[in-house]
Amino acid sequence: MDIGVRLAEVVEDVRTGAEAADDYGHDEALGAVLVRPAYVVRPRTTDEVAGVLRLATEGRVPVTARGSGSGLSGAAIPSADGIVVSFERMNSVLEIDPDNHVAVVQPGVTLTELDERTAGAGLVYPVYPGNMGASLGGNVATNAGGMRAVKYGVTRHHVLGLEAVLPTGEVLRTGGRYVKSSTGYDLTQLIVGSEGTLALVTEATLKLQPRVRHNATLLAPFRDLAGVTDAVPKLVSSGLAPLVLEYIDFLTMAAITHTADLPLGVPDSVREKALAYLVVMLENRDADRLDADVATAGELLSDLGAMDVYVLPGGAARKLVEARENAFNTARSVGADDVIDTVVPRAALPAFMTRVTEIGPAHDTVIVGCGHAGDGNVHLALFQKDADKLAATLRDLFAAAMDLGGAISGEHGLGRTKKKYFLDLEDPGKIALMRRIKQAFDPAGVLNPGVLLD
Amino acid sequence: MDIGVRLAEVVEDVRTGAEAADDYGHDEALGAVLVRPAYVVRPRTTDEVAGVLRLATEGRVPVTARGSGSGLSGAAIPSADGIVVSFERMNSVLEIDPDNHVAVVQPGVTLTELDERTAGAGLVYPVYPGNMGASLGGNVATNAGGMRAVKYGVTRHHVLGLEAVLPTGEVLRTGGRYVKSSTGYDLTQLIVGSEGTLALVTEATLKLQPRVRHNATLLAPFRDLAGVTDAVPKLVSSGLAPLVLEYIDFLTMAAITHTADLPLGVPDSVREKALAYLVVMLENRDADRLDADVATAGELLSDLGAMDVYVLPGGAARKLVEARENAFNTARSVGADDVIDTVVPRAALPAFMTRVTEIGPAHDTVIVGCGHAGDGNVHLALFQKDADKLAATLRDLFAAAMDLGGAISGEHGLGRTKKKYFLDLEDPGKIALMRRIKQAFDPAGVLNPGVLLD
Repeated sequence: MDIGVRLAEVVEDVRTGAEAADDYGHDEALGAVLVRPAYVVRPRTTDEVAGVLRLATEGRVPVTARGSGSGLSGAAIPSADGIVVSFERMNSVLEIDPDNHVAVVQPGVTLTELDERTAGAGLVYPVYPGNMGASLGGNVATNAGGMRAVKYGVTRHHVLGLEAVLPTGEVLRTGGRYVKSSTGYDLTQLIVGSEGTLALVTEATLKLQPRVRHNATLLAPFRDLAGVTDAVPKLVSSGLAPLVLEYIDFLTMAAITHTADLPLGVPDSVREKALAYLVVMLENRDADRLDADVATAGELLSDLGAMDVYVLPGGAARKLVEARENAFNTARSVGADDVIDTVVPRAALPAFMTRVTEIGPAHDTVIVGCGHAGDGNVHLALFQKDADKLAATLRDLFAAAMDLGGAISGEHGLGRTKKKYFLDLEDPGKIALMRRIKQAFDPAGVLNPGVLLD
Repeated sequence: MDIGVRLAEVVEDVRTGAEAADDYGHDEALGAVLVRPAYVVRPRTTDEVAGVLRLATEGRVPVTARGSGSGLSGAAIPSADGIVVSFERMNSVLEIDPDNHVAVVQPGVTLTELDERTAGAGLVYPVYPGNMGASLGGNVATNAGGMRAVKYGVTRHHVLGLEAVLPTGEVLRTGGRYVKSSTGYDLTQLIVGSEGTLALVTEATLKLQPRVRHNATLLAPFRDLAGVTDAVPKLVSSGLAPLVLEYIDFLTMAAITHTADLPLGVPDSVREKALAYLVVMLENRDADRLDADVATAGELLSDLGAMDVYVLPGGAARKLVEARENAFNTARSVGADDVIDTVVPRAALPAFMTRVTEIGPAHDTVIVGCGHAGDGNVHLALFQKDADKLAATLRDLFAAAMDLGGAISGEHGLGRTKKKYFLDLEDPGKIALMRRIKQAFDPAGVLNPGVLLD
């Protein structure tokens, strides 16, 4: 029987042809090719998802999960003969549990929606990957990170449990409303970050934190990147528990302030000599303590060689952080051909950036960037129209990061666009093990083929 | 060729017969039977470990890793025809990296040794499972937890990377000196908590925190457990970020204070009516802020129904926490037949304890306990000499915990002694998936057979 007819038996909302619109054929990955899927299904229930997967495994039909489509590595780009499972209608916050400090969400819930719901309970889901329109399902699939990871960690650290459907249609529940468990292999953590290749997440149990009322933002220009990276471990050691430690190079800062029309009060005399900026955000439940912490941080930054320290007014701080979070769009709007999110040990940042200044010119590629300095997570925008030269640049950058003890992607995932570098550069033994794990979940190989692994 | 002869070719220190002494045949699990292994090897290098594992896979010989032997579930009990790989000679702190806030350790390093080394750098490895003589390798294998998990999480949250040897002898390096990664499946987190059944860890990269100088301990007696569990989420929400939220029932408190000769200043009039105690530990880098936080916590506890609040002097606080950490030994010394470390959502603690009061008498089993109230992690000591009745009690307790959304083990692991309940009570689909994952790592089934899975 035709797969379309059978799909309609297990899920109410099935689209094909023109209805499986172009919107379902791409994410935000730069330079990736749009692929229109054969079918788009929009389930409302876990049972519907299970039915679709059962059929897909039987018929060996590729399946690609889709949240908000805001991914940056092409993990939501389907196969032409495949099914897109769009979670846009499984978008309910099922519960905010104030006693266990947990939210239970469906995969289509956006960060904005979750933030609104947690605020009412005085709680917060503290992962801010930079796009509040992103879905929690996508965040779980890519192990999304963001600026606040230096204090709170990444998505992985806040996923306590999952409901997930295996390609065979089996529904698993992993973990629960608790932090501690030593009861078998951690299937939750294995599924987090697996980019839709092991199982489809239909529900996530997320750890919440108390929402902290007061925060403040400091901007410290430094003469060079080494000044920034030397300062970072000292700020972390200080016990001030910074929420954000963000590095912005002078080019990105110029672009951000220009695009966002953002006067930061940095005099020309300083700006002309500042090659690197450090943004420090602090938070405290108590306003007086926050003021004292800001003063301490300011003194520490000065001692550590900051050319000056500016405490940004709330509006400017918000705009700066928004503009930084929006750096991807800024890069795209000025014609970047790719963006990467490589991670290195944070003390290796200067060494990595030195390598960047060598690798770019070697391939005639212009590279500008900023980074989550507290995490060694470097965001670079690459400008190179020639596909081969771009690929050579990417390969060298990733190899340099790995050589320094880092990894290809800190938070965007490998998807389709970074996979080939991973398969090329990573230890073959590790890749073989990952393939065997993939096989343990997905013997028919229907979940997001071509993503992460081949 | 004889396996003993071949072992001697790949590892310097091989023991057999009487030399493979009884010490290598057990851990601290109550009621578990000592099994003397055929061989004990004590490698000094990863190469030696790889050589042993290669031989074991070739010859289908069971291998059991051993750290300090302080496990409570029998995961370090070997097979009679098997090899014990004791990590006692791979016991170096390889590096304290103050810039990346990381320690790199061999598996035989104890928590005490790591604590001494990190102190010098103003840093701390904040996981305190209660036995400072435990090895990091064992901590990683069981995903050890402890009292401070309510603030800092468990072992899993502090393991950034591993060097691990697969049963085939392949050496893998996973993760690194960074928190963020979205680069393939998280092999690190899969190996953590796998109780020596997937790979042998030969090096761990651990995340450190700034060492906080000042702490204080409050003791709050409540009329009943519900008072304690109601107070816990409010203490967490308060933003005071308690380091420890520990529940101690009146029987355990009596045993602890008696055993440790520990006067806590609780007058008889209060003690007679207090069925449940909450221990709250706070920390702050600033002594004045700590004092203010102690005052705030005291008011909050009073508002929440504490019969009184005692700020314990440093010596008494330390002794109380030590005695609580030592509760296992206390239980053993008074003849407990088993101890469990079940976890439930913390709001489900009163419901669980109600079930405990029904389950114990139903099987003529005396059950006393205390717990990590902030985590819903309940430690119970069971007194029942009849093996069948004990097993029936355990089964009912675990089933009750799972029914309330919890899990069998919060931090001790399943090992040999809790495995049968896991296999009996857990979703067969999940167990089948775990078996397939096991197969992906260990096709010959040589790593700790009989532990966690059959």
